[in-house]
Amino acid sequence: MSVVLKVSRDGAVLRLTLNDNSTRNSISEAMLSALDQELKNAEDDHSISVVIINAEGVAFSAGHNLKELTAHRADADHGAKYFTEIFDRCAKVMTALAQHRCITIAEVQGLASAAGCQLVASCDFAYASANAHFCTPGVNIGLFCSTPMVALSRAIGPRHAREMLLTGEIYDAAYALRVGLVNGVVESEMLQAHVTAIANRISTKSQNAISIGKPAFDVQIGLGLGEAYAHCSHVMVENFLQESAREGVGAVLEKRKPVWPSS
Amino acid sequence: MSVVLKVSRDGAVLRLTLNDNSTRNSISEAMLSALDQELKNAEDDHSISVVIINAEGVAFSAGHNLKELTAHRADADHGAKYFTEIFDRCAKVMTALAQHRCITIAEVQGLASAAGCQLVASCDFAYASANAHFCTPGVNIGLFCSTPMVALSRAIGPRHAREMLLTGEIYDAAYALRVGLVNGVVESEMLQAHVTAIANRISTKSQNAISIGKPAFDVQIGLGLGEAYAHCSHVMVENFLQESAREGVGAVLEKRKPVWPSS
Amino acid sequence: MSVVLKVSRDGAVLRLTLNDNSTRNSISEAMLSALDQELKNAEDDHSISVVIINAEGVAFSAGHNLKELTAHRADADHGAKYFTEIFDRCAKVMTALAQHRCITIAEVQGLASAAGCQLVASCDFAYASANAHFCTPGVNIGLFCSTPMVALSRAIGPRHAREMLLTGEIYDAAYALRVGLVNGVVESEMLQAHVTAIANRISTKSQNAISIGKPAFDVQIGLGLGEAYAHCSHVMVENFLQESAREGVGAVLEKRKPVWPSS
Repeated sequence: MSVVLKVSRDGAVLRLTLNDNSTRNSISEAMLSALDQELKNAEDDHSISVVIINAEGVAFSAGHNLKELTAHRADADHGAKYFTEIFDRCAKVMTALAQHRCITIAEVQGLASAAGCQLVASCDFAYASANAHFCTPGVNIGLFCSTPMVALSRAIGPRHAREMLLTGEIYDAAYALRVGLVNGVVESEMLQAHVTAIANRISTKSQNAISIGKPAFDVQIGLGLGEAYAHCSHVMVENFLQESAREGVGAVLEKRKPVWPSS
Repeated sequence: MSVVLKVSRDGAVLRLTLNDNSTRNSISEAMLSALDQELKNAEDDHSISVVIINAEGVAFSAGHNLKELTAHRADADHGAKYFTEIFDRCAKVMTALAQHRCITIAEVQGLASAAGCQLVASCDFAYASANAHFCTPGVNIGLFCSTPMVALSRAIGPRHAREMLLTGEIYDAAYALRVGLVNGVVESEMLQAHVTAIANRISTKSQNAISIGKPAFDVQIGLGLGEAYAHCSHVMVENFLQESAREGVGAVLEKRKPVWPSS
Repeated sequence: MSVVLKVSRDGAVLRLTLNDNSTRNSISEAMLSALDQELKNAEDDHSISVVIINAEGVAFSAGHNLKELTAHRADADHGAKYFTEIFDRCAKVMTALAQHRCITIAEVQGLASAAGCQLVASCDFAYASANAHFCTPGVNIGLFCSTPMVALSRAIGPRHAREMLLTGEIYDAAYALRVGLVNGVVESEMLQAHVTAIANRISTKSQNAISIGKPAFDVQIGLGLGEAYAHCSHVMVENFLQESAREGVGAVLEKRKPVWPSS
């Protein structure tokens, strides 16, 4: 367990809390390692259903650690090898988050900037406090937010993604809600309870169904309508024949609560 | 005309009304057959321009008929063949709706759940009453809404589609409006008049233009920008040379109402 | 400089003002030529960072010039050759706008109709006055807005694109904001100052970063997640090694304003 990332567990809900206020929760080497490790652990630990990513401190996350990166300009290759390694590792962590077995939720309380905004966009969905802010400010520092763009432009529409990326300005929680970067906005003091309640509810649901639906989402979204239906109809039939559907559908018909088979 | 689906006709507007309140307008075998037949009829009957799908009763539609499906667990193959047939038939009906010659509008007055929500998402667009609700609750019953996902994830953005699918919670009309699942929300007692007025207005417009534009939409959306313009510029020129454009453009220039050529 | 298109320049911001009120700023031959020429000039003139497209008069733009087009019905081929040429030229101008080196912003004060709406949708983003309106009214004149559809269906979601295209109705600024056709709505008398301020701010930012990010956006959006990250991680490393990032990141760490290298 790394100091920069606090890990807490409540039932089937894992909370990863960015906890490096001195660097405004930058996505430093240490943070990348900790996120990488904890996401891998959660991937393998099937007693975990939901991963919440939140932060303590003024910022949600300031993005990459510019001091750490800049120090490597002194390398013989001016940092080329180091930068390549960092951006590759970051892309791997963001991809692990986007394709995680668990449901991933971002809980945003401050400024989510650059790779910090990418972290939000890489979760399945996100909730923010009314005072949260969002930006992809690369154009302000001569370094376009190219990798954050990958996540952002897959989370929101092209006109808002372009506006955020090309202006580099800071946008508030109301904007993030309107453009769909976050799914809900609540008062600051209610945020953690709100997200925890959603996560807890999800964890009572059929994890077998979720384990079927999450990868199917990514498969079908890239297909034409006919192929998407062919794939998902097959998935649906297989699912119907499994114990989770037998129990869940049975419970509905018998007007009782389902008892999910352990697996 | 099936008892579970009421069919009414007013000029060029066909209204298909789910009318099986005892099963909360479930997408039963009978309902699938009736929808299939009526959509085919409308496809062939060129005096019809618009198909409205609405419902009577407490729910818009509860989705698949779980009792009917469950009965086939007693089959020798535990229902595999039957489930395959039902989900294939359902996908065909939803595809027929999504690619229909007529403009299709969902008019949602109650809870649109699972395949009921898919029905809404498969129409060209949708209007809802202020008390309508929407959900894809498969995770609650161990049966992920994989086929509803195909329509839903093509109608709204990925973060809201994931939120609906992975939480399985019920979302209200305001949410549906915000995320774009419905195009407008009106008071319950105004809904039918509102949608009827839109449908009637559409039916006065150039059906030749609509017959050109509807399939062109689906073709161009899957292409790169250059190919999309190549295709649509060609479509535009062909359209301009047809009688509908000669009459319609002429009417604009002569400041009179167009009289569409019959075809 | 054509009379139908006023060109004004303030620092790095170029403003192209549709100025043909007698045809409601139609996208006439003259307008297409002027837009084509000015967009080419701006593409080549690296002292320009932002191109604003706005209009004077009652309308933003009425779309294609129907009188001009109709006159060619008298040609031996009923206009086929001429129409082909005009729609090809229009697609080229719209594509040049959509893929422009500069950031392009639409500033909409009146009705943006058909190819006028396409012009708005082809810019990177757009702001509108509270009394602006938008439509793709081809179904009213027997000529489906097939080419405007290409831009519109890439700017907003499918349900709203279909609603606009298939109903042909006029939608207001609030609708355009809700569906994401415009990024912001301000009072009419504030519009030009609002957009000018945004453009001026953008022009102080790293043009090198923007020159990297704009084309990278279009490349990555068409790729799968893994390929998109591979491409953009590489872009990010290259960018980090350039002078703009050295200066910009250095300025952040030294808490001073960056001085962009000229290029």
